[in-house]
Amino acid sequence: MARKTSLSGFPEWLPEERLVELHVLDVLRESFELHGFSSIETGAVETVGQLLRKGEIDKEVYVVSRLQEDEDTAPAERGDDQLALHFDLTVPFARYVVENGGHLAFPFRRYQIQKVWRGERPQEGRYREFRQADIDVIGRGELPGHYEAELPVVVADALTALPIPRIRISVNNRKIAEGFYRGIGIEDVPGVLAAVDKLDKIGEAGVHELLTGTVGCDDKQADACLRLAAIRSPDASFVEEVRALGVRDELLETGLAELGAVLETGQALARGLMVADLRIARGLDYYTGTIYETQLEGHETLGSVCSGGRYDNLASAGDEVYPGVGISIGVTRLLGRLFGRRALRASRPSPSCVLVALPAEHDRAACNGVAAVLRSRGIATEVSPDAARYGKQIRFAERRGIPFVWFPGGEHGHEVRDIRSGEQLPADVDTWLPPAEDLHPRLVAGDR
Amino acid sequence: MARKTSLSGFPEWLPEERLVELHVLDVLRESFELHGFSSIETGAVETVGQLLRKGEIDKEVYVVSRLQEDEDTAPAERGDDQLALHFDLTVPFARYVVENGGHLAFPFRRYQIQKVWRGERPQEGRYREFRQADIDVIGRGELPGHYEAELPVVVADALTALPIPRIRISVNNRKIAEGFYRGIGIEDVPGVLAAVDKLDKIGEAGVHELLTGTVGCDDKQADACLRLAAIRSPDASFVEEVRALGVRDELLETGLAELGAVLETGQALARGLMVADLRIARGLDYYTGTIYETQLEGHETLGSVCSGGRYDNLASAGDEVYPGVGISIGVTRLLGRLFGRRALRASRPSPSCVLVALPAEHDRAACNGVAAVLRSRGIATEVSPDAARYGKQIRFAERRGIPFVWFPGGEHGHEVRDIRSGEQLPADVDTWLPPAEDLHPRLVAGDR
Repeated sequence: MARKTSLSGFPEWLPEERLVELHVLDVLRESFELHGFSSIETGAVETVGQLLRKGEIDKEVYVVSRLQEDEDTAPAERGDDQLALHFDLTVPFARYVVENGGHLAFPFRRYQIQKVWRGERPQEGRYREFRQADIDVIGRGELPGHYEAELPVVVADALTALPIPRIRISVNNRKIAEGFYRGIGIEDVPGVLAAVDKLDKIGEAGVHELLTGTVGCDDKQADACLRLAAIRSPDASFVEEVRALGVRDELLETGLAELGAVLETGQALARGLMVADLRIARGLDYYTGTIYETQLEGHETLGSVCSGGRYDNLASAGDEVYPGVGISIGVTRLLGRLFGRRALRASRPSPSCVLVALPAEHDRAACNGVAAVLRSRGIATEVSPDAARYGKQIRFAERRGIPFVWFPGGEHGHEVRDIRSGEQLPADVDTWLPPAEDLHPRLVAGDR
Repeated sequence: MARKTSLSGFPEWLPEERLVELHVLDVLRESFELHGFSSIETGAVETVGQLLRKGEIDKEVYVVSRLQEDEDTAPAERGDDQLALHFDLTVPFARYVVENGGHLAFPFRRYQIQKVWRGERPQEGRYREFRQADIDVIGRGELPGHYEAELPVVVADALTALPIPRIRISVNNRKIAEGFYRGIGIEDVPGVLAAVDKLDKIGEAGVHELLTGTVGCDDKQADACLRLAAIRSPDASFVEEVRALGVRDELLETGLAELGAVLETGQALARGLMVADLRIARGLDYYTGTIYETQLEGHETLGSVCSGGRYDNLASAGDEVYPGVGISIGVTRLLGRLFGRRALRASRPSPSCVLVALPAEHDRAACNGVAAVLRSRGIATEVSPDAARYGKQIRFAERRGIPFVWFPGGEHGHEVRDIRSGEQLPADVDTWLPPAEDLHPRLVAGDR
């Protein structure tokens, strides 16, 4: 998006971009529903107490208060009950599941496509208001591991249905790193995860220095950690590569089996799109099993456009726990990049397929009648704003991106003109159809 | 909605209600697009200065601030630049048009379906967070009056496409009352409008008392105002009824002609749904011509579910003015009532049409394959969560509202069971189709 909006970090699309966004959301929704996911929508606000229950990013939260109350109430009176805008869809979903558990059938498959808000400094690919499309499966008490294999397949189906660059879904499993590190005698697992997560930024030497420095590994441990992080494979062959490192640990074996199963399913149902990458870590510490990241080929600098993982401890109520697995597509981040690079557009900027030309203002009722018949047959139609001369009405259609102009009545009967080719032919309001590809705007990949 | 949500005034639907909402929004969007309206979406926040430009409902505004800033910054530092959640979609749309005028083709037809927020005390039909569906046509410099006739037709098309009670769109024109009042020598036009607006609450006698009291009319003037307000007609016959009152005024004549044209178009394109009702006033003082209110038959106590009007002075930039006309459908208000009365539901609660039963866990890959084929043919399918005995898997489908269970392989080949009738038949994964009415959930009117 080149256009500047009045509020930095709150992107707003032009109508033709919004049309693209709507069609992208349609495709995501259709894919999710084909896989049996139900939509839910939660309120935009939660209590601060609910949002910060996992206590991490308090600076990014936008609190909400009534203007009047804001002037009258001392900040001291506020607290955990203060309202704030949600910063993701996972925390609200967890709260929704606990609140509505009695009305849901578990394992519960839900998708949720909503705006979220974060008070961060805006920069490319990072907004203060943006839309995410999340899918999660959540169980009551337990959740079988096969859902960890199913979710990236749903995402692959959804994203490959769009005319966007090829995706690569990188998967890893927390248990592999954790088991491996423990197996070689490392205590500070989060410390090693955090160091390895910096590989892209500071390189192998830098990470090695971190590991042997602040984290307190010896040289051999640091080497082993780096060898583990270097393993990547598009199939289950990573299992043998890890075993070749000679570390034995029960949790490690569990992780290898789980990630192997994810890759097997990926090979069957999302061939060529998934890769085991033992380096990816994901910052959020609530993940306990499989984790996901997704790159767009040719747009790797954008970072992950679709991430998530397995969590066991996000939601609980009394004795009941609700383990889950989820992935979130960063819709605004994806579209912002593709719009900026002119890589995705709509076949036309307006929903209208036909403009009914107006011979004279007193013909408006008749022209409205023509438009009503075309609409009843599913053809999006508007009537000319005024009875300017036809050349001007055709230019209005051009400016709006409307492909057909309908000329009613006259001595030759109705005629319809394709304003792209200039071809004008007799037409019957009860039978005329545009070519199928012109009936609705379609998504098309851009020039580059 | 009987269910209590954790935050009063922030309604959240159950998945089956959300499914209804999505389908209602689909119907609205399709109707709007058939009429050539483009979607736009604005950010959830505006500056307080922008929101209160017309200075009316400051108490209802929710301001937004970063949690950190909230603790550090004295309220005195805030001001017009403070961010706040929008309370309607008209003010943000006006700002969007001024900001993006150079990129839009005028008259610009837009629809906008978004949440809005108001810090009001929640009660039936009044929420703190709710969704509106707005359509507006906005011109640059001028906007022909025929759009005032077109907009209620779009709404009629949209709402009659839903299985909801019959609507009645009441229309009036500000110019009629204003011209009439001036024509009989009344100076305090807003005072009379405000008094007449109380007819429903305090009756004719009460309004008469107000008019002759605080407003300062004489008896004859008050009688004339009440006679005007009593006029209603489903066609243009109201024009003669007004003229029979013997008042001559230029603005009154303009208003009569404009409202007559609206009714004529209504008779042609929204027959039986529109009525001229010279009593309706609409509180918002930015309306300058036609005004609209919509009642749902049998649900009059709910108030208007769809209102709007013509405005001339909402948006301007330098010398440029942008007159417009718009109507807003109160989607949450409408659904809240219909859900509460069980008057609207989906034909099933889940998007899934088929559950593929799982003979044993090691059959999951094969069952995933069956599901993938059905999905590729547009049939929403999920695979059983586990390999419980078939009776239990069928009960899972029942609980999720999935109509068909697919039994893969076995000695008889594939079979599919309609769990409503119990009928189980052989089926081919490449050719089987559910009955058309079962392919997707549909909207159906409820029991009452």
